[in-house]
Amino acid sequence: MAPGQRIEVVTIGTELLLGFTVDTNGAFLGQRLAEAGIEIVRRTAVGDAPAAIRAAIDEALSRTGVVLTTGGLGPTRDDMSKVVVADLLGLPLEFRSEAWEMVLARYRRFGRTPVESNRSQAMVPVGATWLPNHWGTAPGLWVETPRGLVIMLPGMPLEMRMLMEQEVVPRLAARHSGTVVRSRTLRTCGVPESTLAERIGDAEDAIAPLSLAYLPSTSGVDLRITAWHLAADEADRRLDSATAALRARCGDSVYGTDSVDLAAIVLDQLRGTGDTLAVAESCTGGLLGGRITSIPGASAVFLGGAICYADDVKATTLGVDRALIEQHGAVSAAVAAAMATGALDRFGASVAVSITGIAGPSGGSEEKPVGLIWFGLARRGSVSTHRSVFGGNRDEIRARAVQGALLALWRRLDRSAGA
Amino acid sequence: MAPGQRIEVVTIGTELLLGFTVDTNGAFLGQRLAEAGIEIVRRTAVGDAPAAIRAAIDEALSRTGVVLTTGGLGPTRDDMSKVVVADLLGLPLEFRSEAWEMVLARYRRFGRTPVESNRSQAMVPVGATWLPNHWGTAPGLWVETPRGLVIMLPGMPLEMRMLMEQEVVPRLAARHSGTVVRSRTLRTCGVPESTLAERIGDAEDAIAPLSLAYLPSTSGVDLRITAWHLAADEADRRLDSATAALRARCGDSVYGTDSVDLAAIVLDQLRGTGDTLAVAESCTGGLLGGRITSIPGASAVFLGGAICYADDVKATTLGVDRALIEQHGAVSAAVAAAMATGALDRFGASVAVSITGIAGPSGGSEEKPVGLIWFGLARRGSVSTHRSVFGGNRDEIRARAVQGALLALWRRLDRSAGA
Repeated sequence: MAPGQRIEVVTIGTELLLGFTVDTNGAFLGQRLAEAGIEIVRRTAVGDAPAAIRAAIDEALSRTGVVLTTGGLGPTRDDMSKVVVADLLGLPLEFRSEAWEMVLARYRRFGRTPVESNRSQAMVPVGATWLPNHWGTAPGLWVETPRGLVIMLPGMPLEMRMLMEQEVVPRLAARHSGTVVRSRTLRTCGVPESTLAERIGDAEDAIAPLSLAYLPSTSGVDLRITAWHLAADEADRRLDSATAALRARCGDSVYGTDSVDLAAIVLDQLRGTGDTLAVAESCTGGLLGGRITSIPGASAVFLGGAICYADDVKATTLGVDRALIEQHGAVSAAVAAAMATGALDRFGASVAVSITGIAGPSGGSEEKPVGLIWFGLARRGSVSTHRSVFGGNRDEIRARAVQGALLALWRRLDRSAGA
Repeated sequence: MAPGQRIEVVTIGTELLLGFTVDTNGAFLGQRLAEAGIEIVRRTAVGDAPAAIRAAIDEALSRTGVVLTTGGLGPTRDDMSKVVVADLLGLPLEFRSEAWEMVLARYRRFGRTPVESNRSQAMVPVGATWLPNHWGTAPGLWVETPRGLVIMLPGMPLEMRMLMEQEVVPRLAARHSGTVVRSRTLRTCGVPESTLAERIGDAEDAIAPLSLAYLPSTSGVDLRITAWHLAADEADRRLDSATAALRARCGDSVYGTDSVDLAAIVLDQLRGTGDTLAVAESCTGGLLGGRITSIPGASAVFLGGAICYADDVKATTLGVDRALIEQHGAVSAAVAAAMATGALDRFGASVAVSITGIAGPSGGSEEKPVGLIWFGLARRGSVSTHRSVFGGNRDEIRARAVQGALLALWRRLDRSAGA
């Protein structure tokens, strides 16, 4: 295996171990490195203790010869990983005036004055390359030595990501040969993991040597197929046929592939049919609108919506008949339908979707348990409703309700497009 | 140091290394174990490869003698960590009918039939204790051997969390002596990390041996103070005085402590003054409402809001004068003010907050750059506005805008309560 194809990641920060920070950098690095044909074989999180940082980097270097670290490059006193790496590799730190100029320029741009502790950010191990950081004040480092390569990036997600794209990935790509680690993901919704596994059955053997993983989450169960260290065109060919085999088994539970967001699929459908969308949200309190508007360009389709958390607001904002709420309760098919048609009218949209339910932790009953959600879907002249009961805590139930509304929208639009 | 006070966590799943799953379990475990007085000294993520799983658990056992694993207990074929641990510890797997009964009961409850692969979930290493999982089908395992303790939990967050609370923490607490690892976090907003560091200055030495970490995020910069392995009352005493020392330096940038959510603080303030709240959101598309309603009990204060993404909807839903939008643009003080007063009127609330801005990636100009947000805050008879420019990508700008609206609300309410 060519050097550079296997890497270990060491993330540094006591906050990661104590759990005050969720390690989102690890996920980004895994995806980005795999795209570049480099496999992370281990990721280790250690605290801000020099001995622990040193041991983790030392062990990782011995195993793979290539280590990428995140964290510990900032100006505050808990940041020390650069000093540790310089010491481990026997390289003294030196002041680089061009790196310092860049820190100064960034401060000027924001009308601020650097403080004395910022000078440490321009200290670089002798012989190392500093990677310019246009998104923050801590440069990255590329330290190539006879023992191997250590790449050091800041822990702030935006800075880490931009340095990866602009500086690290191109340099790593230049170091290794042409095989790739490539994945494809089938996104499914509405079918439990073990039922999917039964449906797939021996197809899992048929796709070998590609691996298959089941990844359940609040958006459904993703099926991830991975080709390891194959030439790019062979990997693609095998992924194509494996995808087709699994798709044949999983049928209409597959709503898309890879990192596609169901919200983006729905927006594309609506854009294609010249429709506009409004939402009416009760228990999700705006999360559906927030999810839809996370897609850049949503404004071409999405007009807006009503967050009608209080029952009275369902009446005043959307014109839901108060008698309907009295008779059926706010969590009911009748109210979900009235919310959707109300949103259609009030926002002048051609499609509207509504969510009303019980997110918990309290408020459930025998008849209407926590997790019960009613959805309404209205178009000009028609409205339909459906019911789901989701498991999980308050956050999970709300996330599943948002996904459920998007799924209802997708299925309905898909059907009417095909009709 | 008593056994059980230091632990290593091994998270298992190729999806974690490839980055398709963000490791939120790691953060939860760090917090929960620290609360119980147990320090995670290292967290290692490995893929679904038996050799890698085995090596990571073996090394971790050698270092601390206590290892907690997550993942690899499900019914699908990529889940294999139980087999690896049984082999590493020299314990054959046996079928436990009482564990199988529990799996069956769970399936019956959901009206489903288990498939053949589910039977593997009732296989347990000889001599190990199985931990009943009421939230999923894979039992946890508690495997105590002469080499040390291996605790195995499923990877699904809800199941892992509930098993930690109900089964693991009580058992671990019984194993070790009375010292704790305890943290306190001061939550600050509106002041950059390096400026905070200058303000704090030598206070950092004064609080030793407690450690201080700076944790910047879209909600501001958190200051985390940690006492390591002290008796509970000594830890509390030192944390109290360190907190007071830092608070004195950081002044009014501190909005709270620990995991408090600014949304919960604002809701409490409003509940205290008998106010009701409505929101009007443009670029955040519902995220502010979503954040507020993530707090159970929000319905006592929060009535609802308008997601007015399209300019026309700002006029039709909130009564914003179209001429105002023409003249000043949708992202302006005038429109932010009109949105807030419109929400106040339409929803019949006593307080309303509005957000209008440019979340990017496109749509910015010299005069109105990406990241520009105008906030409006209305009460009966008064309205104020203020402006911020946030950095980051679309998601980060939107998250900072939500936090900015909450901060504006908090400061304003705080001031009027004090007046």
